[in-house]
Amino acid sequence: MNKNIFFVKKGPFLLNEIFDKILLKKKEKISDIKILSEANNTDLTFLDSIFYSDLAKSSKASFCITTEKLKIHLPKNCTPIVVKNVLFELCKVVRKFYPDADLDRPDLTLKTPNKTIFPTVKFGKNVLIGKKCSIGKNTFIGSNTIIEHDVVVGNNCIIGSQVTIRNSLIGNNVVIQDGSKVGLKGFGFIPIKDKNLRFPHIGKVILKDNVEIGANCTIDRGSVDDTVIGINTFLDNQVHMAHNVKIGNNCMIAGQVGFAGSSIIGNNVSIGGQAGISGHLKIGNNVKIGGGSGVVKDIPDETVVMGYPAVPLKEFIRNSKK
Amino acid sequence: MNKNIFFVKKGPFLLNEIFDKILLKKKEKISDIKILSEANNTDLTFLDSIFYSDLAKSSKASFCITTEKLKIHLPKNCTPIVVKNVLFELCKVVRKFYPDADLDRPDLTLKTPNKTIFPTVKFGKNVLIGKKCSIGKNTFIGSNTIIEHDVVVGNNCIIGSQVTIRNSLIGNNVVIQDGSKVGLKGFGFIPIKDKNLRFPHIGKVILKDNVEIGANCTIDRGSVDDTVIGINTFLDNQVHMAHNVKIGNNCMIAGQVGFAGSSIIGNNVSIGGQAGISGHLKIGNNVKIGGGSGVVKDIPDETVVMGYPAVPLKEFIRNSKK
Amino acid sequence: MNKNIFFVKKGPFLLNEIFDKILLKKKEKISDIKILSEANNTDLTFLDSIFYSDLAKSSKASFCITTEKLKIHLPKNCTPIVVKNVLFELCKVVRKFYPDADLDRPDLTLKTPNKTIFPTVKFGKNVLIGKKCSIGKNTFIGSNTIIEHDVVVGNNCIIGSQVTIRNSLIGNNVVIQDGSKVGLKGFGFIPIKDKNLRFPHIGKVILKDNVEIGANCTIDRGSVDDTVIGINTFLDNQVHMAHNVKIGNNCMIAGQVGFAGSSIIGNNVSIGGQAGISGHLKIGNNVKIGGGSGVVKDIPDETVVMGYPAVPLKEFIRNSKK
Repeated sequence: MNKNIFFVKKGPFLLNEIFDKILLKKKEKISDIKILSEANNTDLTFLDSIFYSDLAKSSKASFCITTEKLKIHLPKNCTPIVVKNVLFELCKVVRKFYPDADLDRPDLTLKTPNKTIFPTVKFGKNVLIGKKCSIGKNTFIGSNTIIEHDVVVGNNCIIGSQVTIRNSLIGNNVVIQDGSKVGLKGFGFIPIKDKNLRFPHIGKVILKDNVEIGANCTIDRGSVDDTVIGINTFLDNQVHMAHNVKIGNNCMIAGQVGFAGSSIIGNNVSIGGQAGISGHLKIGNNVKIGGGSGVVKDIPDETVVMGYPAVPLKEFIRNSKK
Repeated sequence: MNKNIFFVKKGPFLLNEIFDKILLKKKEKISDIKILSEANNTDLTFLDSIFYSDLAKSSKASFCITTEKLKIHLPKNCTPIVVKNVLFELCKVVRKFYPDADLDRPDLTLKTPNKTIFPTVKFGKNVLIGKKCSIGKNTFIGSNTIIEHDVVVGNNCIIGSQVTIRNSLIGNNVVIQDGSKVGLKGFGFIPIKDKNLRFPHIGKVILKDNVEIGANCTIDRGSVDDTVIGINTFLDNQVHMAHNVKIGNNCMIAGQVGFAGSSIIGNNVSIGGQAGISGHLKIGNNVKIGGGSGVVKDIPDETVVMGYPAVPLKEFIRNSKK
Repeated sequence: MNKNIFFVKKGPFLLNEIFDKILLKKKEKISDIKILSEANNTDLTFLDSIFYSDLAKSSKASFCITTEKLKIHLPKNCTPIVVKNVLFELCKVVRKFYPDADLDRPDLTLKTPNKTIFPTVKFGKNVLIGKKCSIGKNTFIGSNTIIEHDVVVGNNCIIGSQVTIRNSLIGNNVVIQDGSKVGLKGFGFIPIKDKNLRFPHIGKVILKDNVEIGANCTIDRGSVDDTVIGINTFLDNQVHMAHNVKIGNNCMIAGQVGFAGSSIIGNNVSIGGQAGISGHLKIGNNVKIGGGSGVVKDIPDETVVMGYPAVPLKEFIRNSKK
């Protein structure tokens, strides 16, 4: 996964071409911008939260955009580029490397699929497929569905009708029901009066084997990282997953649940209808979250929570009786 | 309504072909699997909750999958088949009778409508209609809309654009706004590690006369039973109705409301925006549910409730002032 | 904006043709029905709430449907037409002037766009455009998207795929992501047993420059007034905006937020995911509303609120600790 197959990358750039206003004597070539765990020694990375300090320790990147406070978490091989606002500087860097990833311009390479290329795929009517898509054996693609360039869909999948998929890698036996939109740009931007600066979304959506997505869901792709749903996790209708969210295996996500960005959900988690999960949280394994809950804190393994804000179930029941 | 027009049924099967591991000396032929109230003496039925004990008493079925505890509610004509997990056994039986109802494979019989068959219907562009659909007089069907095989749409309906309808019987003067998905498979499965066992959905959606469905709603069909919306009930946008929910007449359901499976809502009920109704509840007539409420208990007739969990309005106001 | 470009208007009517059961000696000609601030001296207007008393004082309308209690807010030039139920009478009047605005019949003038008319617009496949649409320079329109008659889209916009737009005026640099439905009829009707009387929706949606709308959103048009989103306001996925809601400039509205009808939101407001805003509220400038909140009261400028019902943040934290 070391080359971005969905976006055209510019560069390499010299470090002082990237950070012209920052005093940096080094003239190293930087070939790409990547997350801590994916970057290698020609890449630039970033650290904007203590949440990722463990990943920072083992990063192979040569340079890292970070703050005065967070730079102590970087290993010796990695030179900190200290800034005040990591996301603002990162945004500018990503825009330099990937100038087309800030907006989802519709794919103009879409065509009616050539059935000789996909002899075992069952297509509905008016299906549109972009350049270089791969679709596995015995997969169904429903009518009016759009699969944009370079998307990979595995074997034995059932993609419903009126679906859009872009910037996504989809495993085997995956089901996506009608009207869902997978892999679109997430809700990320630097607020600037009268013209926000959009954060480019160069990440993907990865749906592992046996995932099911209900109808009219929205699964945004990652910004620099990826959005991931683990093996055998099922989502009901109208679920919203923001950028960079990672859900583990064997989870059950009921209707109208919403995930803000970058949270990490463990395995065997069940979430009741209309619950909301705030951003940048860590939800453990075997957690149960009651319907309508608003989760604003990390949840340890094996915990049952409910309420707004969500608390352990016993506490919720006690509070409700007061 | 005794024959399932949407799915191919296998069988009849001998009782001991269906339950090979259960000791049953009887060799009766079983022609179908149906809910308590619809089954006749050649059918198998099931009873998985005390909620349905009244319906059990008058069932005409000859055999019923149930538990040791619930079997006392069955009439003499009905032999209990006692199991530990009714839904798991039921799931296997329904899969045997209806092997194609576990997944919504897109309808490959869709075609551009033949206007000589529907002379008074006004079609937008790129409409797709499946085999044996019936569409009433003076009905409008918007562009890019998909109506799958065997669906019935009444007279004077207005179906918007980008809609999908399957496995549904729709009355007269019904409005469905753009982007709604009606009659899809619900969120039902037996969780099994790494490969959930999907519960087949052999039920329908029934929309009675004068119903209105807003935009981007999802109305799942029933699993063994049907999902029903009564006369003159209006739903706003982005409402989610899970399998088997029944809403009465003259109800008002505001935007983004969600219904979990199998709840029964009375007549003249109004539900405020973003409220959630848990599964298997009974909501009486003339009930008012405030916006954002989370209903987790039955509600008697003529009650006004609000809150999470929802309580009578006076109590909610008292609690909010504390 | 004095002529309704989206709907055919009947009339003028004599006042006694409009209110046949109300004793009115005057035989004036009434040319249109408009909101207080837009009506001129040949128009009829209405005042149904003290909320609009300031607008009433400066209205140029000659006649106003109102109640005995509210009529004191009208200026001398404006003769009150006193009724018991303003909305019911208004509904009948609007239906008389605009008999086709009660239901969203699909636009049957849609055609594949003629590229000589839109030489700089980049169209995906299967795009459908209605009569007299205007689309600005360098705008992208995604595949399977429908833009109905008379809609105006500005320059440099990016409209995604599977979108529907009707009755809307869209500025420059606007982004609308896949699956959103903009400008549909709102959820307004007078409940009448077995056949509700639909309120005609003769208003528009106005999206000002630099607005972004996420995926699978629903933005209903106004009933008599308009629904408006101000410059540089961004909405995430699955947001629902009911009729007549007005959002100011530079706002951030996160995923799955819902707005009930006719609320007015200030500038620089941020609203967290899944929050709900009740109808007819006034939310000030620079307000922050926490995720999952249920707002049921007006909020003054510069306030941070959270909770259900939403209260100032300090109070919410104090209550959560009890």
